[in-house]
Amino acid sequence: MSNTKVLPLVEPHSDAVAPCCPPLTERRFTADEAETAARMFKALGDPVRLRLFSAVASHEGGEACVCDISDVGVSQPTVSHHLKKLKEAGLLTSERRGTWVYYRVEPSALAAMGTLLTIAPAEA
Amino acid sequence: MSNTKVLPLVEPHSDAVAPCCPPLTERRFTADEAETAARMFKALGDPVRLRLFSAVASHEGGEACVCDISDVGVSQPTVSHHLKKLKEAGLLTSERRGTWVYYRVEPSALAAMGTLLTIAPAEA
Repeated sequence: MSNTKVLPLVEPHSDAVAPCCPPLTERRFTADEAETAARMFKALGDPVRLRLFSAVASHEGGEACVCDISDVGVSQPTVSHHLKKLKEAGLLTSERRGTWVYYRVEPSALAAMGTLLTIAPAEA
Repeated sequence: MSNTKVLPLVEPHSDAVAPCCPPLTERRFTADEAETAARMFKALGDPVRLRLFSAVASHEGGEACVCDISDVGVSQPTVSHHLKKLKEAGLLTSERRGTWVYYRVEPSALAAMGTLLTIAPAEA
């Protein structure tokens, strides 16, 4: 047996970040498209999660550690729970540096949601 | 006492349609802004509601009656329930004409959600 291990190169993002979907006004969504898009909307469908998300998104340098954003009036475990949900939906990414975990908005997820809400041009 | 009554001029839309809010990336949301915005996101955070919403939004003429959009694999009462939720969130409006109720996307709500997901320019 060898002492060396090959670490697998695992893509850390959830599949919610996969390109999805056309504008909601363009055509009927398929069941799969609706599942993917609903997961992202649901993640932002809670006031505390929205406040945490906007706190990360608007923080200097585009990233924030929990120490910067935990003043939203809920307990620390609740903050952690909501940040986890935002990560699972592909809306935030995180990186541990020293003592703290830093959170950053996943721009492709924000862009995907923006596309969904684009108003498609009327058919000629 | 007078027999006449002055009827108050009530705006029929829910307050979810009220202008709300800055882009999520611009600054931290207040609790009130987060409540309003989360209500809209939550309404789209369900796959069946998203499919119904896209069916209305993409239907010819920008409106659809229940008879046009009830083929999403759930019962008629469930369709009605989800359409009611979308109306309560200010995302759809409805109008009865003859036998059928016709649904239409509320453009100001779609625009408000689009604004939320705009990426604010970085500060100089």
